[in-house]
Amino acid sequence: MKIAILGYGNLGRGVEAAIRQNDDMELTAVFSRRNPDSVKLATEGVPVVHIDNIMDMKSEIDVLIICGGSATDLPVQTPKYAEFFNVVDSFDTHAKIPEHFEKVDNSAKKGGNIAMISVGWDPGMFSLNRMYAGAILPDGKDYTFWGKGVSQGHSDAIRRIEGVVDARQYTVPVDDALSAVRSGSNPCLTTRQKHTRECFVVAEEGADLERIENEIKTMPNYFADYDTTVTFISLDEMKQNHAELPHGGMVIRSGKTGLKGEHNHIIEYNIKLDSNPEFTASVLVAYARAAYRMNNEGMSGCKTVFDVPPAYLSPLSGEEIRKNLL
Amino acid sequence: MKIAILGYGNLGRGVEAAIRQNDDMELTAVFSRRNPDSVKLATEGVPVVHIDNIMDMKSEIDVLIICGGSATDLPVQTPKYAEFFNVVDSFDTHAKIPEHFEKVDNSAKKGGNIAMISVGWDPGMFSLNRMYAGAILPDGKDYTFWGKGVSQGHSDAIRRIEGVVDARQYTVPVDDALSAVRSGSNPCLTTRQKHTRECFVVAEEGADLERIENEIKTMPNYFADYDTTVTFISLDEMKQNHAELPHGGMVIRSGKTGLKGEHNHIIEYNIKLDSNPEFTASVLVAYARAAYRMNNEGMSGCKTVFDVPPAYLSPLSGEEIRKNLL
Repeated sequence: MKIAILGYGNLGRGVEAAIRQNDDMELTAVFSRRNPDSVKLATEGVPVVHIDNIMDMKSEIDVLIICGGSATDLPVQTPKYAEFFNVVDSFDTHAKIPEHFEKVDNSAKKGGNIAMISVGWDPGMFSLNRMYAGAILPDGKDYTFWGKGVSQGHSDAIRRIEGVVDARQYTVPVDDALSAVRSGSNPCLTTRQKHTRECFVVAEEGADLERIENEIKTMPNYFADYDTTVTFISLDEMKQNHAELPHGGMVIRSGKTGLKGEHNHIIEYNIKLDSNPEFTASVLVAYARAAYRMNNEGMSGCKTVFDVPPAYLSPLSGEEIRKNLL
Repeated sequence: MKIAILGYGNLGRGVEAAIRQNDDMELTAVFSRRNPDSVKLATEGVPVVHIDNIMDMKSEIDVLIICGGSATDLPVQTPKYAEFFNVVDSFDTHAKIPEHFEKVDNSAKKGGNIAMISVGWDPGMFSLNRMYAGAILPDGKDYTFWGKGVSQGHSDAIRRIEGVVDARQYTVPVDDALSAVRSGSNPCLTTRQKHTRECFVVAEEGADLERIENEIKTMPNYFADYDTTVTFISLDEMKQNHAELPHGGMVIRSGKTGLKGEHNHIIEYNIKLDSNPEFTASVLVAYARAAYRMNNEGMSGCKTVFDVPPAYLSPLSGEEIRKNLL
């Protein structure tokens, strides 16, 4: 399976590493908007090609994994390239998924390709687990918790404040809320009760720390609805203790069965990730395998994790999966 | 969707209750080997029919959920009825699944039906989670823990010992083993290190308790390889404290990503069930929905959880799922 990557940031580098863990795949090319000479891959012998020349390599690519951002890259790139390639993206603006789906579906059907959108862990594996658990326990309630982990969007929001040199924001699930959910008591939880936000901030010398802290804590949408703590640290401390991008979280469904709803059940899907981009990349690569297979069987159009028979993700045959994993 | 049940034990009663939680389904009939007059359903107006007369109702059944045991019922019933009905079973003798699959597949294809086998939580949801996690993290290790919960097979094995009136066996995961796995250290664990077995036994008056305890603890396959505790209790205590069938467990995959495997990730699927048969039944019912839809689309043959696109399990439309769950 010949895989190409569009966009060589954290996610693109994660995809490159993930491809090396899968014997049935090889990396054919990395496409970038940057000057190809300025991009140095970790894999030897693989060309970096300017995105303008992507069509020259059409016949050498089975699946194109698009590693851009959801704000401005993917809404343009995925519909554009789905006409010419099987593609996979990690579009994660939940509210705009229906619109993205429509556009990508038209384009993928036109080209006879499979376009797998919103792949990763949320949306992605968390969505799948919400769906499976909801189908099994229709009389129940879903809870999604994120963290403990770095939210890049929230870190960026802090960095835009005047006087801030660097920032890292950790989203942290509240233990009491988690315990209540796991007990099966089906609590109603406010935004504030579910997560806290911990901010580590490097400020410019002489900056007004009180103003910065206040601007963070009162920022609408991002922080105002949460219990937020702000800790000022040095640039050295930031580099030493906050260089990684860990994340994780859990999807929990609590539901009842029985003629009188007398039995309670808890289904929990829980992930702890040392590297958010590398894990997301690993999910993208597994779904690239599925996209390729589905297209080989004659399918086309936009697909999500809900549409993919699980077996298509595995390099093993149906017989092997049944024998070893069922 | 018109659902029928074959076999009205704990699992069949669970299916009956689960159907009532799903508005797109109705229970058409319950088939039994017993005299129909002796079987009293919880649902009014639904006929109990002797299994010999099942073909008379063929046109009134969309999916037949077969609720027999894996030892002697399902190996005969599933291949037999898959020729005439879409069927779902919970065949759980892991080693014999390939053989069962073959027989059922031939028969289902002959009749143009879908036969969904080995549905439940293990095999079933646990298998799915082993597969998803393994496809995402190819460089890793799987761990499955069962419990805390009642193992009916082990309880039965104790009941066959001379002098035993009743028995309940709980399988219990060992906390230290669980912690080691969750830490990402990828420990090698022996059978004894993963689970303990707690037995509650009611003995006949005057029975030789020491002999019974010894027979349990040395029983090959069932108990000899485990740290087993035996507690003798009264029949009253058994009825009061051990009448339910709780179960649960977890599938954990610990795997590495990155160019040098420098990042570790833990994926855990964890269930806590007040009623093992009712939860299993709820999974069977969701897969009955999928069987019906797949057959309506012209598919036939034997399928497992690996073959079913998740969306087929949900009563919601593709649009609704994408909007609400993705």
